[in-house]
Order: sequence, then C-alpha cells, then structure tokens
Amino acid sequence: MTVDRRAFLASAAGVVAATALRAQPADKGAPLPSWADGPVKKALLEFVAKTTAKGGKEFVEPAERIAVFDNDGTLWCEQPVYAQVFFVIDRVKALVATKPELKEKEPFAALLKGDLKGVMASGETGIAELMAATHAGMTTDEFAKGVSDWIAAAKHPKTGKRFTEMVYLPMLEVLAHVRASGYKTFIVSGGGIEFMRPWSEAVYGVPPEQVIGTTGGLKFALRDGTPVIEKLPTLVHMDDKDGKPVGIQRHIGRRPVMCFGNSDGDYEMLRWTTTGAGPRFGLVVHHTDAKREFAYDRESKVGRLDKALDEVPKHGWQVVDMAKDWKTVFAFEK
Amino acid sequence: MTVDRRAFLASAAGVVAATALRAQPADKGAPLPSWADGPVKKALLEFVAKTTAKGGKEFVEPAERIAVFDNDGTLWCEQPVYAQVFFVIDRVKALVATKPELKEKEPFAALLKGDLKGVMASGETGIAELMAATHAGMTTDEFAKGVSDWIAAAKHPKTGKRFTEMVYLPMLEVLAHVRASGYKTFIVSGGGIEFMRPWSEAVYGVPPEQVIGTTGGLKFALRDGTPVIEKLPTLVHMDDKDGKPVGIQRHIGRRPVMCFGNSDGDYEMLRWTTTGAGPRFGLVVHHTDAKREFAYDRESKVGRLDKALDEVPKHGWQVVDMAKDWKTVFAFEK
Repeated sequence: MTVDRRAFLASAAGVVAATALRAQPADKGAPLPSWADGPVKKALLEFVAKTTAKGGKEFVEPAERIAVFDNDGTLWCEQPVYAQVFFVIDRVKALVATKPELKEKEPFAALLKGDLKGVMASGETGIAELMAATHAGMTTDEFAKGVSDWIAAAKHPKTGKRFTEMVYLPMLEVLAHVRASGYKTFIVSGGGIEFMRPWSEAVYGVPPEQVIGTTGGLKFALRDGTPVIEKLPTLVHMDDKDGKPVGIQRHIGRRPVMCFGNSDGDYEMLRWTTTGAGPRFGLVVHHTDAKREFAYDRESKVGRLDKALDEVPKHGWQVVDMAKDWKTVFAFEK
Repeated sequence: MTVDRRAFLASAAGVVAATALRAQPADKGAPLPSWADGPVKKALLEFVAKTTAKGGKEFVEPAERIAVFDNDGTLWCEQPVYAQVFFVIDRVKALVATKPELKEKEPFAALLKGDLKGVMASGETGIAELMAATHAGMTTDEFAKGVSDWIAAAKHPKTGKRFTEMVYLPMLEVLAHVRASGYKTFIVSGGGIEFMRPWSEAVYGVPPEQVIGTTGGLKFALRDGTPVIEKLPTLVHMDDKDGKPVGIQRHIGRRPVMCFGNSDGDYEMLRWTTTGAGPRFGLVVHHTDAKREFAYDRESKVGRLDKALDEVPKHGWQVVDMAKDWKTVFAFEK
C-alpha cells in the first residue's frame, strides 16, 4: 500500500486527509475540552490518570496500554447507514454503467434503491456476488486508491459534509488524550479493514497496522512478473459481535485495557476487555441527540443498542449521553 | 493474554525471559558490533542511514518504516528442526501419558519418533488431528501459559541451551539498530502466532501485536459466564511462502521497507518488499557455519534455501555468509 499511500498524499484525497490531520486536536491544556464536565468525563480522566501514575496501585505498564475503538457510531456517524454502504452503492453504480444487465438483478437492484433489507435477503450468495463484482480481482493498491478517491469526494446525505468530517470531535480528543498517556489506539470495526486503512491515519491518527476489521481473502500473485496482492471474493473474518474479541486476539494478542463502543456489536469486546484482571474501562456512546446528530438505540436497524445498554450497570461501563455529555459533536459546528 | 502475561513475568519462564531481555543489546556506540566489517554490514548501515536522513533523497517517513523478520533460521536456530516441533512432541508425550492408545496411532506415533516425514504423510487430516488433540479446546490464556512453561525449561538437543538462548546475537543487534532508527519491527513467521507471542517481547523486543504467524481458528465463548477465547482445530492462515505477503497485508496494511529471511519460505515476502517504490532492502541469512551453528541450504529439509539464493543478484538482495559475516553467532559463545 506504500506506493499508493504516497500517491494518496499527493492526491485530492490527500488534501482532505491532511486537512483532517490538522483538525485533529492536540492533547494540550485541559484535556477533553469538548466534553461537558460530569461523571463520564471524570471517570475517563481518572482512569487514564490512575493507570499511568508510576508507583500507583493501578499502574499499567506502557506495553500493556491497549485501547480499542469501534468505528461506525463510536468515532464517526453511522446513520442513516454505514458510510461503506454508500461506497459500495457508488461502486455498483459505476459497474452498472458498463454492465446494465446487473441493474435488474438482485442484490444489485436492491442496493441501488438503498434497500439494505433487500440486499440482505439475497443471503450469503448475494453478498458474495456483490463483493465479487465490486471488490474481487482488484489489487489491494487499486482498491486503496478507489477508497481514497471516493472518500475525497463523497458527501453525507443529511449534512452534505464529507464523511471524514462526520467524526466526533470529543472522540478525537479521547484518542489524542489516551495516546498522549501512552496508550496504543486500535480500531476494531465491523467495517472492511481495507476500507478504513487508507484514511485512518490521517483522520484518527491510527496507522493501518492498528486497524482491525472485517477481512476478505487475499492472494499473492505475479502480474507480468511483478508481485501484487489481489482481493478475493471470500470472507476470512467477520469482525462484529463475537468476532471482535477474536479479531483483537488475532491482531493484538493482548487483552485491551480500554474499550469504546456504541452498539450490541461491541458487547462481546466490551465484556472481553472489562473482565480482564486489573483496571479496565468500558464506555458506550449512546446516541441521544436527534438535533445535532441522530437519536437511536433499541429499535435501530443500524447500530442497535439494546443488550449492551441493559448490562451497563452489571459491568460498570460508562455511558455517554451524547446530548448532555458532548458540548460539540462535530468540529464543523464551531 | 494480559492476565497470563502478568503471571508469566512472575514465573520461571519470566525469569528466563527477563534474562533474555537484559541480554538484548542496546544500540549504543558503534552499531552491529558482532558483525564483521564487510559489504553486508556496510550495505545495512548505509540503508538505514539514508532512509532516516532528514531532507535526503531517500528519506522514508517514520510511519512508513516497517521492517519484517522471519523467525526460524533468521532470528533463532531452526535446526535440526523448528523449536515448535519439540514443543508439540512434548505436548503429545504428555497426552499419550493419559491416553496410551494414541501411541500406536498416526500421526502421533511418527511424531513421537521425531519422524516429521511420517507426520506429513498423514496429510491434512492427520495434522488437523494433531492440532485438535494438542491445541484445541484450550483457551488462548491456557495455551500461552503452556508455551511459557515449556520455553522456560526446554533445551536444544545439540547445545543443551534453552531455545531462547539460541537466538542470533547479530540479528538482535539489527533489531535494536533499526528500532533505534525509527523502524517498527515485525516478525513474519511460518511458526504459530500463539507460540511466539508469549516470549517475543522479552526475547526480541517485538510485542505480540507485531507478531504475524500461522494462525488457527479462535472462538469467543462464555465459561460459567466468564468470557474466554478458545482455540479451534482449524487453520485460518498459513503464514509461509505466498502466505507471508498476505499475512503482512492483513496485519500491517503497508508494504515493508526492509525484509530479512533465510529460506525459500521467505522468497515471496522478499519480492513483495523489494519491488515497492523507493528505497527497499532485502537480506538473506545463509547458514554456512557448521562449526558454530549448522551449514545447510539447497538440500535441507528444514529451511531449504534454493530459489531465493539463485535470485539474489537479480533482486539486489544482501546475503549474510554466517561463517564470515558474523563474529559471534550466539551470546553464550562469549
């Protein structure tokens, strides 16, 4: 991906990313300035302080300071549907322009109508067909380039902002603060690993090697004698629900100390994190702000939060009430 | 793994590991002191210098400085057979003590005789049975504990030294030197990822999240309501030959800048690394020292080096002539 990443930094997407990078808050002065004073902010700051106080009873060795973050709904907006769905829709549109016969065929037809339920109804075969048509056969470099170009241009349907602007400023501040305190930050997302990596470093300060996500098959091949890595239409790892602790173990090989999520898809990694020995921190972002973002939980088709919310008291997790705890949601509000 | 890692540091294995850690050379004074002056040492030092010289034409951004190292035969001794094979033999011995009927059954019988060819003859079914019997059903924490206990006690059959002492001092110096120059060091091994992680940090300074290896299935489960991760008897990723670039892409998501290997199993990752744009470095350790270690290449069953050696001139890789280029092989020689 190096070649592509270098090209990327010189591209339109690179300009967006560089802007995002400059927009990343430094952890200077009072930490978490976009957070309202209250129990959640207090608990977060106290946890970081006590686990990094040398000689303290709850000190955590720097090497063990691992913090994992869900992406959709935790670091950036996931409504009305995951950004990656818009990406796939745009790819299918481009595909249909050259192969119009696909327009009438499922799951392409459903997807083009934004009918995710219809897409899911086509089952594994349909999804595999979709992945094969839009992802497979490309090299990882080509795919990364496609993602970079797309994310430089695509706009959120409600706000008209770029998706990389739809990141939560308070969470960027958390990333910056825990990193400044010696925590290594990882993304652990149900989204595609190759979809996030081209921009995660610029937008979140999380390098590609610290991104864990849903993973498709890859194949090393020689094209005219030159090594490439090709994407295959197979699913290797579904990084959601009970797949998240597995992805964490596979990539990190240590149990995290801090875990941030927002939906039932994060329940298992919250459990896995917070049942480790020693100090552990779990936090659930509760979307309660229909005015500045979206309000949803138990009944939502995207980012449903039900069981994880019920079990908050049982496991001692923190809950962010977005409307109350975040003074600012998006940097562009300011 | 955190809990176990903490227990590990307080255990017998921890003592060994801590000794190894203290034995890790600091990158102070003249770098690579165990290397004889010569073209390989010179090329290595010059490459690191030019890629880290700010403002230089071949400067590589710190974030892009990725160096990957094969383990068996590159960082530690792989003869007469991979250390992990001794580990599995010891596990099978323990198993047979409780289930004597396995003693006559393949592939257990062949393994107990050290007959790897016989083990391989049992095919995928046999290997799967072996993995199932010795690995599956354990939690990752239990497995890590088993590895830690074993590696604290097991001895190399030729030297009588612990396996963690059978690491190459010159390569520890390379790890230290490239790290001091801002390179992030990763292990990319055909060996089991969960076999290396319990000791890689103490012995090599490579944390578990920077270890890539052959990977078995994992499953998140609740045992009496407590989350665990269980090992499954399935193979998820074979990290050898063309699997190595795939493992690199999956875990790191960037193309390495430096690659160190010793066998044809490293050929594809050497190609993948050194065909990237910009400065790239490939190095092959050639085992030429029967007196201090082992001498083997084209005809060896373990760590066969043939094609990769033939193609060295074509790709501009460096070759270490162990007998000539390394003043010291093992720290215990001194």
